[in-house]
Amino acid sequence: MEVSDKINAVHRYVEAFATQDINIIKDLFAADARVEDPVGTDLHEGIEAICAFYENALSSGAKLKLTGDVRCAGTAAAFPFQVLMGDSTIDIIDVFYFNDDGKIIDMKAYWGPENFKS
Amino acid sequence: MEVSDKINAVHRYVEAFATQDINIIKDLFAADARVEDPVGTDLHEGIEAICAFYENALSSGAKLKLTGDVRCAGTAAAFPFQVLMGDSTIDIIDVFYFNDDGKIIDMKAYWGPENFKS
Repeated sequence: MEVSDKINAVHRYVEAFATQDINIIKDLFAADARVEDPVGTDLHEGIEAICAFYENALSSGAKLKLTGDVRCAGTAAAFPFQVLMGDSTIDIIDVFYFNDDGKIIDMKAYWGPENFKS
Repeated sequence: MEVSDKINAVHRYVEAFATQDINIIKDLFAADARVEDPVGTDLHEGIEAICAFYENALSSGAKLKLTGDVRCAGTAAAFPFQVLMGDSTIDIIDVFYFNDDGKIIDMKAYWGPENFKS
């Protein structure tokens, strides 16, 4: 998988929130993917559970704004961003791992209460 | 482990580079820690291998500059930073996982050639 494909996947993820398009999420994630958001909470396992999680997230109206380079290494991409919700922001780092088909197989989101600002 | 302890560990990691003090590294990492830097390359396993790796890194004169919030979640902390070497910079994201003793048990660094700037 090319670095440009991983960076493109991150931009499509941002676009999914901008356009509230769950089909982008369905296309990005593998059928047997795992999502841990935030890290330390229960996993969302499998594309159905993942789509249910993101349908909620997308419908909240939250938008994502990258706040630095996408960092690609091995089969992974890590990136810093802000979630924008009204006048509030949350600073988050997401890490995606991709499978051989170029789908996200593992997603972890790192953030906590101290990353909220309003 | 308190969030403030994890944030403090990140600041001491930055200080280890600022002062080229390997003793800070020795104190931060667990005896059986693993370091993958960058992700996708061979692991440095155990404190001896990790100290050898960092003695090299510290003596290079590289300095670290945080470029955003430390994100704490579960037993982890993730943070974006730049490595400064002369007129060059590398944008990196590190993820630390801590053990029950508050030591780093797993460290992963996400960066690639496209994160170099000069």
